[in-house]
Amino acid sequence: MFDEVFDVIVVGSGFAGLSAAIEARNAGCSVLVIEKMRVPGGNSALSGGLIAVANSPLQEVANISDSPARLANDMLKAGKALNHPALIQTVSEKSREIFLWTRDYLGVAFNDTLIHGGGHSVPRIYTPVTCTGAIIVQALLVKCRELDIPIRMQCASKDLIRDDSGRVVGVTVASNYIFPQQNSGIIRRIRAHKAVVLASGGFCQDVEFRMIQNARLDSSLETTNHPGATAEALVSALKIGATPVHLSWVQMGPWTSRDEKGWGGSAMFSLLSGFPNGIMFDATTGKRFVNELTDRLSISQEMTLAGRDPMLIVGGEAARLHPNLTQCLKRKVVKRYDTLETLALDQSINAAALAATLRKYNESVDHGVDREFGKPLGPNNRHKITPPYYLVRLRPKIHYCNGGIQINTRAQVMDVEHHQPIPGLYAAGEVTGGVHGACRIGGTAISECLVFGRIAGANAAQEGQSAGVPDNHAM
Amino acid sequence: MFDEVFDVIVVGSGFAGLSAAIEARNAGCSVLVIEKMRVPGGNSALSGGLIAVANSPLQEVANISDSPARLANDMLKAGKALNHPALIQTVSEKSREIFLWTRDYLGVAFNDTLIHGGGHSVPRIYTPVTCTGAIIVQALLVKCRELDIPIRMQCASKDLIRDDSGRVVGVTVASNYIFPQQNSGIIRRIRAHKAVVLASGGFCQDVEFRMIQNARLDSSLETTNHPGATAEALVSALKIGATPVHLSWVQMGPWTSRDEKGWGGSAMFSLLSGFPNGIMFDATTGKRFVNELTDRLSISQEMTLAGRDPMLIVGGEAARLHPNLTQCLKRKVVKRYDTLETLALDQSINAAALAATLRKYNESVDHGVDREFGKPLGPNNRHKITPPYYLVRLRPKIHYCNGGIQINTRAQVMDVEHHQPIPGLYAAGEVTGGVHGACRIGGTAISECLVFGRIAGANAAQEGQSAGVPDNHAM
Repeated sequence: MFDEVFDVIVVGSGFAGLSAAIEARNAGCSVLVIEKMRVPGGNSALSGGLIAVANSPLQEVANISDSPARLANDMLKAGKALNHPALIQTVSEKSREIFLWTRDYLGVAFNDTLIHGGGHSVPRIYTPVTCTGAIIVQALLVKCRELDIPIRMQCASKDLIRDDSGRVVGVTVASNYIFPQQNSGIIRRIRAHKAVVLASGGFCQDVEFRMIQNARLDSSLETTNHPGATAEALVSALKIGATPVHLSWVQMGPWTSRDEKGWGGSAMFSLLSGFPNGIMFDATTGKRFVNELTDRLSISQEMTLAGRDPMLIVGGEAARLHPNLTQCLKRKVVKRYDTLETLALDQSINAAALAATLRKYNESVDHGVDREFGKPLGPNNRHKITPPYYLVRLRPKIHYCNGGIQINTRAQVMDVEHHQPIPGLYAAGEVTGGVHGACRIGGTAISECLVFGRIAGANAAQEGQSAGVPDNHAM
Repeated sequence: MFDEVFDVIVVGSGFAGLSAAIEARNAGCSVLVIEKMRVPGGNSALSGGLIAVANSPLQEVANISDSPARLANDMLKAGKALNHPALIQTVSEKSREIFLWTRDYLGVAFNDTLIHGGGHSVPRIYTPVTCTGAIIVQALLVKCRELDIPIRMQCASKDLIRDDSGRVVGVTVASNYIFPQQNSGIIRRIRAHKAVVLASGGFCQDVEFRMIQNARLDSSLETTNHPGATAEALVSALKIGATPVHLSWVQMGPWTSRDEKGWGGSAMFSLLSGFPNGIMFDATTGKRFVNELTDRLSISQEMTLAGRDPMLIVGGEAARLHPNLTQCLKRKVVKRYDTLETLALDQSINAAALAATLRKYNESVDHGVDREFGKPLGPNNRHKITPPYYLVRLRPKIHYCNGGIQINTRAQVMDVEHHQPIPGLYAAGEVTGGVHGACRIGGTAISECLVFGRIAGANAAQEGQSAGVPDNHAM
C-alpha cells in the first residue's frame, strides 16, 4: 500500500534535483521533491556558483577559442582518463545550453568576466554576480514555486521500492525526519508512477563510508560540505544493484583556510583571486612548488607533502577586485601586510627567500610566461604581486565525491549485473560517478548537475509506467 | 528446495579458495569447492609463486632487519594509504606463519635466496624452486585430495541465496558449465549449512566491467590473467549489498613483453632477474627514467608516458642465474647481444647514449648507491651490466584488481548499509578489496590469499547455522 502517489519523485533539492523536478513538471508530470534537511539546497547552496561553459557568449566577446571537445579533453586529462567519455561529452556539449537556461529561463545574473579555473586550458568559468550558488538555488526554488512543485523538507529517502520485475516504483521515506537522528520520522511509502530521480549528493560528511573508500579520509580532516552530505541514498541504490564507480576518488579542495572551519569565507577569495592572480608558496622554504592553475588533485597532493606549509599571497591590485575582501579581512582569514618584512616576521618566513620568489614571479608576469611552473598568464590574470600583500594560510579540505553510481547519457542508473538501465531509476549530480574520474575541474559540477538533472527529469517524465502495479498494491 | 547440502561452499580453486577449504575441512566440516573453469587454480596457477614474508627464516640467516610493521608500512606507502590498516596488519603479521604452513604443512620447496621486490624496503620475497605458483596450487590440491574435499570443475556460482533474515545459506550454481557460455550448464541450488566463502578472483579479463571502473582499460590492452578472471561472482556479492572498495584500482604489471601474449615466458625473467639486476631504459633516448625497484604503479605510469619505449637490459653474469633463460632465448622474448653496438643497431637505439647510461649505472653498482634514481643495491642485486647483454622489450599489461568487496579481519564480507558482516558470507583473495589500496607490491597477493583464505575457512567452520531453515525449504 502506498500513502501517496506522484508521477516523479526527486530525492534531493540541490542543482540536480531541482532542475530535474522542473523538467519533469514542464513535461506535464506531478512531481514531489523530498529533502532530508531543514533547508533546501545542500552543497549547491554553499557552492560558489561557478559554471564551466564551452563556447560561451563571453568567450566570443573575448575571442577565446574554445569548444565542447576542448572542455571534454581538459576533463579527461584531469580525470586521468578514468572518466566515461560519453558522459563527459554530454556535459560539455550541453554546457552552453544550460548556462543560457540558467541566465535566461531562471533569470540568474552573471559577472561579465570569465575565470580561468585550475585544470582548464582557457578561461571559461562564469560566476553569478553574488559569487554564490545560493542565488542559483534561489532561482530554481522560485521556478518550482511557480510550477507548483512541492518541496518537502525533513523527508528522508530510506529505500527504493521495486516491483517483481525489478522496476523502481517508489520510495520508502521518513517524514518529519530530524537529521542526523537516523531513526527519527514516520515511515511512509510514496508511489512514483513513472520514475524516481536520485539527486542526493555526495558523502564527504560520512566519515565511516568515506574511510572505507579511502582510509586516509579520517575524522581529523575537515570538509567544505554541508552536514547532510552522507551516503544513505547512494547506498539505497547500491543495495538494489546500481553499479558503483570511482568511489575512492574523493576530492580535496585546495583553497580552504586553516584559520576557519569548513568552506569558510576565504575559499572564494582564494579560488577567484588568489590562485589565478597570486602565488602559493611553502612557508618552510619561501618557494613556489606548483602551477597554481593546475588541477585540484595535483595541487592538493603537492600541498600535503610532508613538511609543506602552504600559503597564498596576492598583490593589492588584484586582491581589491574581490567583492568579499573586506569581510575576509574582518574575519582575519585574509591578512593584509604593507611590506614583505612585516609579513615574513609575522608568519615566520624567510623574507629573502620569499622576496626572491616574488621577484621571479613578477618577471614571469612581465614576460607573460611562467617558465618555472607553466601557469597560464592570460590577460585576465596577469597581475604582479606588489604591496600591500594579502595572505591566506591554506589547508586542503574534503570537497567532492567524484564517484557514485553509474548512469548512461540518458541519466538512467545502470545495473551492476547486466550493465543495463534499472527501469524507473534516474540519477544526476554528485551521487553519480563517471563524469570526473580521478579529478573534477572547477565549474564542472554545476554544469553536470544542471545538464544531467534536466536530462533525468525530462526522461523520467517519458518513462513507461510499470504494468500491473496498481497504486494500492502491497509490495 | 536444495539439490545438495554441505557445511561450507567455497567458490574458486586458487590459493584463497583451496586454503579456505582445507581449514574448514580440518575443522570438521563437509566442504565443496566449485570452479567454473575446466582446470583448477585460476591466476594462482599462472603466477610466479612469490610470497612476501616479514621476519622470515632466510632474513634471519642473512641478517636482514624486517618486521610485520615494516612490511605493513611498505604496503601502505605503495597503496597511497587508501588501504585498510587492520587488513594490512593481519596479512603482514601472519605472513611468516603462512610461509611455514606452505613449506612445512604443504611441503612446497623454496629457493634459498630472497628477492628484493619493487616497493619493498628490504629483500623479503620467497620463490618456490620452480618459480611458479602452480607448484603451490598442486600442493594444495594434493592436500584437498588427502582430506577428501571435492573440487567440482565447470561449476559456476550464479547467485548467493539468502534467507529472510539476510543470512547467506547457499549458492545457485550452473553445473556442467562451459566457460565462457554464460547460459550454459544446469542450474542447481546447493545449501551451505554454515557459510559460503567467495574466493573467485579478480576481473582483469572482464573488459566491460573493468572499463566501467576505469575507462582507460579498453580491449586494446592485454592482460596477464587467465580467461576466467571475470566479474560475475564479485557482482553476485554486490547484488546482495556487499560493500565495493577500490574497484577502479586495477593494476598494470610492468614486467611483460610486447613480443608475446599475456604473462608469457619472459615476465618471470624480467621480474626476478631484469628489474633487480638490470636497468630499464627508454629506447627513444637511451636513458633510464625510474628506480626499477619502486612500486608497480609508479613504474607502469612512467613506462606508459607518451613517447616512451621501455626496454630492459641485464648483464650476462646476473641473467645466467635465471632458470628459464634458455627457454626465453629460444622463444626470442629475451634477446642476447655480444656487444652494445649490435644491440643498438638491431633495436635502433643511440649506442653512445645507452653506453653512457650503462657506464653511469655500473659506477653506481661500484659505489653501492644509485644516486640517479635511488634503486636499492644490496648484496643480492649488485650486478654490473657487462657483456653479453640480455634484452627484453617491455609492455605493461593489466595484472591485478586491487579492489573488490570489503572484508573485516575475520574475512567476513561487510554490508554496505550498516557496515556489519553479512551473516554466512566470507571472502578472501583478489575478489576482496582494501589490503592493497592504490598499489599492490610484489609477493603480497599470495600472502593475502593464504592468510585470509585460511581465516575465512576457519571462521566459516565456526559460523552458527541459520535457525529455522530446513534444507528442503523453498526460498
